[in-house]
Amino acid sequence: MKINTIRFDNDRLFIIDQTRLPEHTAEIELSDLDQAIDAIKKLKVRGAPAIGITAAYAFYLETKRLINDGADNDQKILAAADKLKQARPTAVNLEWAVNRMMNVFVHNRAASGSELMGLLRQSALDIHEEDRETCRKIGENGAEIVQNGFHILTHCNAGILATGGLGTALAVIYTAHNQKKNVHVYVDETRPLGQGTRLTYWELKQHNVPATLITDNVAASLMRRSKIDLIIVGADRITMNGDFANKIGTYNLAVLARYHNIPFYCAAPSSTFDRELENGENIPVEIRDKSEVTALWGIGNHDFYDVYNPAFDVTPGELLTGIITEKGIINKPYKQNINTFLIN
Amino acid sequence: MKINTIRFDNDRLFIIDQTRLPEHTAEIELSDLDQAIDAIKKLKVRGAPAIGITAAYAFYLETKRLINDGADNDQKILAAADKLKQARPTAVNLEWAVNRMMNVFVHNRAASGSELMGLLRQSALDIHEEDRETCRKIGENGAEIVQNGFHILTHCNAGILATGGLGTALAVIYTAHNQKKNVHVYVDETRPLGQGTRLTYWELKQHNVPATLITDNVAASLMRRSKIDLIIVGADRITMNGDFANKIGTYNLAVLARYHNIPFYCAAPSSTFDRELENGENIPVEIRDKSEVTALWGIGNHDFYDVYNPAFDVTPGELLTGIITEKGIINKPYKQNINTFLIN
Repeated sequence: MKINTIRFDNDRLFIIDQTRLPEHTAEIELSDLDQAIDAIKKLKVRGAPAIGITAAYAFYLETKRLINDGADNDQKILAAADKLKQARPTAVNLEWAVNRMMNVFVHNRAASGSELMGLLRQSALDIHEEDRETCRKIGENGAEIVQNGFHILTHCNAGILATGGLGTALAVIYTAHNQKKNVHVYVDETRPLGQGTRLTYWELKQHNVPATLITDNVAASLMRRSKIDLIIVGADRITMNGDFANKIGTYNLAVLARYHNIPFYCAAPSSTFDRELENGENIPVEIRDKSEVTALWGIGNHDFYDVYNPAFDVTPGELLTGIITEKGIINKPYKQNINTFLIN
Repeated sequence: MKINTIRFDNDRLFIIDQTRLPEHTAEIELSDLDQAIDAIKKLKVRGAPAIGITAAYAFYLETKRLINDGADNDQKILAAADKLKQARPTAVNLEWAVNRMMNVFVHNRAASGSELMGLLRQSALDIHEEDRETCRKIGENGAEIVQNGFHILTHCNAGILATGGLGTALAVIYTAHNQKKNVHVYVDETRPLGQGTRLTYWELKQHNVPATLITDNVAASLMRRSKIDLIIVGADRITMNGDFANKIGTYNLAVLARYHNIPFYCAAPSSTFDRELENGENIPVEIRDKSEVTALWGIGNHDFYDVYNPAFDVTPGELLTGIITEKGIINKPYKQNINTFLIN
């Protein structure tokens, strides 16, 4: 793995600023809570698992600062956790990671400051390390469905740049590639922010995986001409019936896959499942600024434009062939099998 | 109509350079054949009917130049016609317009130079004027399917900027709007070249038609939430069974429309029908340069990117609810009804 998406070194938190990829690969340091939240909001770090990991480290650094500052910290620590969780609304892993950190804090309030800091530090490191291992297992489990010679379509970036490890959807592709299967990836651009163009294509090339870039409009005609054997995407939140939120355009691909009888999988760690939601109807979908759509065209007069710019859409589980997780592939019926999966 | 897409004034040919819209609305003059061909290739003028009209004027101006130059012109005029027809391969109207001009030339070779020039000039003016009238009729015929309160999705630009009149797909919308029906248009961006963002949105706003811009990835989720009542697109070539070529991404919308039970129409003049092709399999699809996809992202290192950039896709007629023409709406079965339509 040639890319350090998130690096924690000597109690300092660094990320690759993904808004500047692929032209600039420079790291930036997130030295306080506001910088971390800003980086998450502005998608300098993105991808459901990666923002969870970043938030865990940022929470640790903030508690450390507050504890070192002195007394009366509970409210401030709780506020920091809330602020982090609200940085972006759709991916559930962010909430999951911060809650896990808060649990460590709540259960160890009696401990000394240095002991507590040590526990929180270890918890953040664990979240990062576990994600690395989870990605590895997702890759192994998913690679079984990849046959030699497959052309695989992926959307947005569910790769090294989205996680603490090899990725989710892309972990499957990297693993198949490492197993010497011939795979070729169609990377769709993923408007508006071009995570396909800027991130997925770039990281696949760093690892010598054959890839072709297409605009989002091209996928359907490739499917019609039987040029795509498999579609794998990531997920930002999966509900208990298999409905899932992912980057806007995912639902489009799911419908196309169904129409053309192409297997359509999402790949995600168990932290992506939301036990609170029975189905996708109530997943909060983040609506982002219109400048994300207009800026690229150099259109100065933004007021002229009324733009609807949702960052995600919700795909019904019914359209999913399976969900690739670190514990195996979940098949239909999802309601029953997701329950079993989460208990085990 | 507030926009002069193509203007022919005192034997001089002007177009709005559409590659500079919406920021710059300046006209440029096409003073010779090479400039006209270059403008068509570079999409300074685009849209199937508009390139036909431009080619007709350019052909007239070139024959005028050659005739004024003197003898031995047949080969040169034939070469000019071929060069024009080859400027872009997919839209059949270009070929249709040039063939119509060539017919005038061939049937009047015995005429004097000034007489011949007058006939060619008139023929080009007729093509332009007929298209204006054709657009008007397409608008009237199509407006019947538009109900008050409709949200209509359109793709690319099939409007004033694509024709000599009100457009094809957009003529339907303008006409419904002028009939005081409340219509609202979802304009999709249409990557890679953003004809939706730059052209359709702009011209709708010039005429006070309510519109919202979306990326191509958003359409599916709007359909799922019943936010789209009708889809109308243009066409660059329609074959005898109703299969048709149009801007890349059209087929995507056709599949989505079928899945969500949304009426899906194309609107086009009869010059768009290709009597030579039984079905869409052999429509030539133009593959354009990868820089159209990468340039917008400011990606310097183009060699790094392998891009597949088709300008069009082919939609099976089977997915079309109907074809809106100047003579009425053609319904299924297309094979039979298109034949009848072309004979009448």
